[in-house]
Order: sequence, then C-alpha cells, then structure tokens
Amino acid sequence: MRLTPLALAFCFAAPAAFAAGKPTTIAPADIAIAEQLREKALRDDTAWEFTEGLTTEVGPRLAAGPNDLKAREWVTARFKALGFDKVWSEPVTFPKWVRRGEHAEVLAPFPQPLSLLALGHSPGTPAGGISAEVVGFDSFDALKAADPAAVRGKIVYVGARMHAHQDGHDYGIGSQVRVDGPPLATQKGAAAFLLRSAGTDNDRLPHTGVTRFDPGQPAIPAAALSSPDADQIERMLKRGQPVRVKLVLDCGFEGEYTGANVIAELRGSKTPDQHFVMGGHLDSWDPGTGAIDDAAGIGISVGAARLIAQLPKRPARSIRVVAFANEEAGLFGGKAMAEKYRKSIGNTVLGSESDAGADRIWKITATVKPEARDAIGQIAAVLKPLGIEYDAQAPGRGGSDLSALHAVGMAGLSLHQDATRYFAWHHTANDTLDKIDPEQLRQNVAAYAVVAYLAAQANGDFGSAPGAFAKDQGED
Amino acid sequence: MRLTPLALAFCFAAPAAFAAGKPTTIAPADIAIAEQLREKALRDDTAWEFTEGLTTEVGPRLAAGPNDLKAREWVTARFKALGFDKVWSEPVTFPKWVRRGEHAEVLAPFPQPLSLLALGHSPGTPAGGISAEVVGFDSFDALKAADPAAVRGKIVYVGARMHAHQDGHDYGIGSQVRVDGPPLATQKGAAAFLLRSAGTDNDRLPHTGVTRFDPGQPAIPAAALSSPDADQIERMLKRGQPVRVKLVLDCGFEGEYTGANVIAELRGSKTPDQHFVMGGHLDSWDPGTGAIDDAAGIGISVGAARLIAQLPKRPARSIRVVAFANEEAGLFGGKAMAEKYRKSIGNTVLGSESDAGADRIWKITATVKPEARDAIGQIAAVLKPLGIEYDAQAPGRGGSDLSALHAVGMAGLSLHQDATRYFAWHHTANDTLDKIDPEQLRQNVAAYAVVAYLAAQANGDFGSAPGAFAKDQGED
Repeated sequence: MRLTPLALAFCFAAPAAFAAGKPTTIAPADIAIAEQLREKALRDDTAWEFTEGLTTEVGPRLAAGPNDLKAREWVTARFKALGFDKVWSEPVTFPKWVRRGEHAEVLAPFPQPLSLLALGHSPGTPAGGISAEVVGFDSFDALKAADPAAVRGKIVYVGARMHAHQDGHDYGIGSQVRVDGPPLATQKGAAAFLLRSAGTDNDRLPHTGVTRFDPGQPAIPAAALSSPDADQIERMLKRGQPVRVKLVLDCGFEGEYTGANVIAELRGSKTPDQHFVMGGHLDSWDPGTGAIDDAAGIGISVGAARLIAQLPKRPARSIRVVAFANEEAGLFGGKAMAEKYRKSIGNTVLGSESDAGADRIWKITATVKPEARDAIGQIAAVLKPLGIEYDAQAPGRGGSDLSALHAVGMAGLSLHQDATRYFAWHHTANDTLDKIDPEQLRQNVAAYAVVAYLAAQANGDFGSAPGAFAKDQGED
Repeated sequence: MRLTPLALAFCFAAPAAFAAGKPTTIAPADIAIAEQLREKALRDDTAWEFTEGLTTEVGPRLAAGPNDLKAREWVTARFKALGFDKVWSEPVTFPKWVRRGEHAEVLAPFPQPLSLLALGHSPGTPAGGISAEVVGFDSFDALKAADPAAVRGKIVYVGARMHAHQDGHDYGIGSQVRVDGPPLATQKGAAAFLLRSAGTDNDRLPHTGVTRFDPGQPAIPAAALSSPDADQIERMLKRGQPVRVKLVLDCGFEGEYTGANVIAELRGSKTPDQHFVMGGHLDSWDPGTGAIDDAAGIGISVGAARLIAQLPKRPARSIRVVAFANEEAGLFGGKAMAEKYRKSIGNTVLGSESDAGADRIWKITATVKPEARDAIGQIAAVLKPLGIEYDAQAPGRGGSDLSALHAVGMAGLSLHQDATRYFAWHHTANDTLDKIDPEQLRQNVAAYAVVAYLAAQANGDFGSAPGAFAKDQGED
C-alpha cells in the first residue's frame, strides 16, 4: 500500500493529538560535531577502500554461491580491523538458487545468438533447451489482458522500456515485468518467459534479478534479454513472420542454505541498548562484482561509523552497521533481522540503508513520529550544504533491507541517491568498481555520518515501537 | 610511413612544376545538382533501411564464418532491388579463422571469472587451458624493453589506456598493443598474451580485433580483457602477490576460405570505364552485429548512390559501391581488388570508403594530383553547410579497404567521421543498430552523395595512375 502525503500526515497527526509527547531535539553542541564530521568525511577514503577491497578481493557474491562464506569472513575481518567495539553474525536461512549457465539463439527467421541471463529463482530448461515461437507484448498490462490461447506453449516476450530519472521511478515498470511477469505467463500456459532487461542502458549486457517463483511452485524458465537483443527480437516480430527462439537455461533451486547478517557495533556511551542502524547488503548478483549494488552501501556506512569512532567519545546510543544476507533474492537478511528484533524494535531508534549506488544524495525523507519531525529538520539543515533537500511530506522507510524492520515498527530515514546512472548497470556484469565516483561516494559518507551521529545523540526518540508504522508500508 | 603536411605539399608540388597539366574543374550546373542531392539526402532513409536490414536479417558476419555467404547473398539481392545497373562478385581468398569460445578466471590470489575475447588469428590454448602467473606492463614500449627472462613462461598483460577523441587518434596506442604485442610476447617466450581492450569505454564487453599472426608462424594464445577486468587485474598486481590466471581459448586457423567482394555499379553515361568507388566492408567481428563496423559504411554508400540513380541522367563516369570481403582480419578484400585493378588503376578516378561508424562527418581531406586540388576545394564548398571543414594539408587516402588501391595509384578522398563514440563499441558485442543515430547517418549520406556525383562529373581526373601516390602511404 502506498499512502499519499496527505493521508500520511493525517495518520500521524491523529495519535499526536492524544499523545502530545515531548519533542525530540538535538543539542547545538551535537550539531557542531555533526558539521565537523560532514567536512571530515569529504576528505576521507575509508568507504572507497572498503568498496575497492570487497569488489577486488572477493568479487561476485551470489547469495549461497561460492563466495557467500568468503564475503562474510572478509567483511568480519574488515569490521574488526576498523576498530568496531563488537562484530557478530546472525544466521539467515533461504532457498539456494544456482546459475550454471545459459544461452539462446534465434532459430528463425534470422538465425543468430542472443545475449541473455536467467532470472533469479528461474527453473532451468530441459537439457536440450526449449524451442518455441515467440509471442510479444509491449507491457505487463498487455500480457495480463492476453487470451491464454494466444500464449499457450509459446515463449512470452515483454518489451517494456525504462528511461533514466533522478528518482529511478521507471524501475517500477521494469521490476513489475521481471517479478510478476513470469508467474503470470506460467499461469497462462506459456513455455518460457523473456523480457527486455529492466534497465535504462543500450548495452549488450542483460540485467538479471529475482522473479516471483518459490521452490515447489509451478514455474517456467525466465530470462532477461539485453536491450539491443530485445530491439532485435522486436524488429523481427514487426516483420510478421513467426520468430522461433531456442533457450537453454541451466539453473534452479538446490535445497536450503544458511548464511548470515554480519553486524558491527560502536557501543553507545549512555544507552547502549538503543541503536541507530545503517548498512547495505553483502550479496550481489553474480555477473558483476556488486560495487554499486551494494558493496558501496556497506562501505558508506563503514566510512561514516569510522569517523564517529574517531571522536573522543562514543555517542550516547550505539551505532550498528549491517552487511545483510541475500537481499537480492527476497530480502532474507532484513526479514530475519525483523523477526529477531520484532519485540525489542523500540531499541532500534532509527534506520537508514544505502542501496541505490553511490551517486550524490539529493533528498532526505523520513517516516517518524510527529514529535521527532523537528529533529529531522535539524538533521536536514546539517545536510543542506551537501546539496541535499528535505522533503518533509514524503515517506522515508529506510531502504530495502530495512523495510521489514520498518514494517514491525522501526522509524525510517531515507537518503535518496541520484539514480540517473544506477539503472544502466544494476544487476549486470557492468556493476564494477569503475562505476563509482570517489567524490560522490564521499558526499554519501558525509550524509550518513551526520545522520548516524545525530540519531545516536538526539534527546528523545523517533517513534520506533512494535507496530508503530503499520500503516506506512511500501517502497520509498 | 607518415608524411608531415609540409613534406606532402612538397612531393606534389615538385612534379606539378614539370607537368603543369590542365586543372580539373567542376561545372556550376553540377555544383547545383550536388547541392540538391545534399538536401534530398537529409530526408532519405535508404542508408538506415539497408543497415537495419543487414544487421537484423543477417546479424554477425565473421569473415569465413557461418554468415559469410548469407551476407553476400543478402547484399547482392539488396543491390539488385535498389536498381543498380550491374551487380557482381569478385572472389577473395584468405585464411579461415574460427572462434568456438573462450573463458578465463583468476586462480589466485582472488579467484573470480574474467570477461575476455580471443583476438582474431590467435591460436587456441591446449584443451585444459593455460594456467600461469601474470606479468604486467603499462605500455607496448615497456613490454619491448622487458628482459625475456621476466616474461618467459608467463602470461603477459599490457594495460595501455585509450581516451575518446573526435579524430580517434588513441586507436594508434590500442591497436599497436593488439597487433604487435602478441608477436613480441611470443618472441620473448611468453605463454600467453592479454591486453586491456583497445577501446575507450568502461563496459564489461571486451574488444576483439586481429593480431599479427599468420598461419604456420610461432604464436601464443592472445585475448583482450574488458576494461573493468583489466582494472581488476591491475589492482591485484598492485597488491604485490603473484596473480595466477587460467585461460581457455578454443579458436584457431582452419585452412582457407574463398569469399568475395560484392560490387554494384551505376553505369556512367559518357566514360563508363572510369569510375568513382565508395563502400564499406561486409564482414564484421562476431560478438556484435557489425552496425557501426561496417554495415553503415555500405549503407551510406548505397544511400548516396541511390539518390544519384534517381537523377534524370547517369553521371558521366560510373559509380561503384563495394561491399568488401574480410577487412577485419587483414584487408583481404581491398588487397584482392588492388591486385586485380593494379594496371587499370587510372580508371578508378577517386575513392572514398566509410569505415568509422556513422556519426557526423567533420572533416574532408584528399590525396590527389596538384591540378585537382581546386576541384577538391569546390567539392568541399558544397560540403561546408553540413558542418564539414576542409583540411587541404592533411592526406586523404580513402579509408581502410581502399588503402591497397591507393597504394597502387588510386587518388583518395577521406570523409572523417566523428570517432568520439566509435571506439567505445568498436569490435564488441555492443556494435549494434541502436548505436547509430539516423540523423547523423543522413549527414554522412549527404556528404557521400556530393562527393560521388561531383567526382563522376568532374572535368579532368584526380591523378590516379599506376604508382602515382607511392610516396603517400600509411593511415589517414
């Protein structure tokens, strides 16, 4: 469910009239320290070194894949080396999905190879592949409206296009096709499913990503074509002759796997049981090295925490950095954490995750109790010199892995990264370190350092409590 | 050999003092027709339709590969359908090189897969691949200076970087590493050769291209890493631990193949034995569909010829469009043509090939006899409204496939395309139709239509004669 800004204002205004609690405030001395952290962050390369190290020394990190354990060991060692007070893991269990390879070709009318990647959680094809005629749709809704008779036994292709925007809103179009398209095509009796990659680029590099298939459910092989390959299929379909494609996907579920969230903590000096949480996810899709998605997210949090650790004194509350397990195939790390901390969610005073690359943060939003709104305004004022605008009306749920914690009552704050470039590389082999601009990365660290420090020092909380934000669910 | 502009001016000025022939001129009525052709071309999509058709209906066109014959049949049929007066083929024989596949991985210190492509004419590795330590160099000259003892038995890596420029001059750096690096490394006893792709992009798509290995010569497996993979290897080397890579290339020579140049002619109305020649090459590297390299080159020539064919009367001289065979692996089509027409090269009054994509032409240069210099100036004046500047000092040898004809005495004219984007996609899977901007493509057609028409109507020739330009060799 998405709330409009007006509905949101109302649902918080109402309890406030009864509660009329003490406003949360931030002391001028803390603002001054936050400003120093902000300036120091713009000259600090801890985040870069973390991101460089993880993407170089571990590389691709498919959840449950050959590097899952290695990545956890790497991040654990790095957290310890960086001087956190405590580092630990919390187990996360999820279905193991394996990609062994894939290829495809047009058989007729114009034989030629196609570049594609199987979607996460797709089953494989039979060993000899699937050869069938392609039936094309230009949107998810067009497939929805299709008569099953037109689809049965065929390879469904959906060719929705995404365009680049600062707020990345076209990902809604692309991810709907990728997530909901394959089950819909399965239901209509299709033999397999192809989509134009959910991306904004024209590179011959397909965008993988998970689809909505659970182990044991009916499912058909599903894969993403690169944008130029999608163009090619569309040009062939336009000529009116039957287009036959052969698809060979070697992938599928292989039981269960237990990974872990890896957590590092700076222990609070006054109320250590309360904490601010930030982080990113440790897993990545396998074709790239997961630099923008999401080594940078952990790196930014680590960079921010490190600067706070260098202050003469720990802030009042604890600060946690989480490297989440298996975000990509279903937010498993975030869900496990929400389950574990559900009852004590009031201790997680605020959370903010970085999972949209490392380009400049341009907007801050938050979903907090009304009495904390002014404190968010104080935080936003410290961020303003970084070119970050405060939208006090829009929700801020803290990001992908934190969505489950928000759902059980954690107050959320979102630092919105410029997504203009992000969806060109997201989930592709092109997600590599060179796509990160060190200067923009430092701006991210500056923003997170400010938010983390001020959340940990604020006088009063942000409204976290079991069920507190039950009406504010959905994506930022 | 490269001549400086001054040396060039001198070597043509000298014979002119003796010859003092009649200047070549172009009649005002012909200028007027050329101006009409130019304007009409800016609204004509024949070149686009040709390029779209060849890249969609044939796709990749590796010389001697599965589509070589199919491409010749396609282009022959299209030439005929477009109303040329005569269409024929001239056989071209060359070594057949086959790519069956390749893969590579870092074995230590940080195991992970690498994206690479074997270079054309590379031998394969033994079936189990080659596993060896990598020794890195940052330039061709550094490899040249290396002690063979430091290289023996190792995988040589050369990491020279190219940057994007309008005139594409950094390709000199990249192509030297690719062409001359592998034989040099072979000579020094290396086990295999890797380079940072000769490209200006940061995409995870390696740039293939031919290297200087002939059948039967000593040779080692040679391949190009994508730019992000090259970065990764360099970061690992910088850490100081031994970097071990496993390389599996399945490719190599397989006897000889006879393909053909396919030629289309508009028959001249007065002196049909004399002709202007333009075109592009029909072969492409196999990972892409050869849109910018070089379906567009033929498409541009076809578009220009078609407009001239629609005039009420054929121009005085013939106009030939050539779809050259196997440019990529050694200019075989151009060389076969030069051999065949060597004695009668005086009939090829002028030649200009398009082989640098389809972005806007920004410069015209020519290598002609001094008495034709004014006529080139007249042609350049008609091109000026297209934003094309005339550099009367620099050579213009007509382009890659025509270099062999120029070497035996053909006067050359070069229409320089903006190469800023070209070397990001050149020889990669990204060489696909979407990289062509229809508006810039039409500007190219306009320029070629003007040049072809005026060369075919000029009063007097441009200096083509056996051996005429023996001193002006090299690349444009």
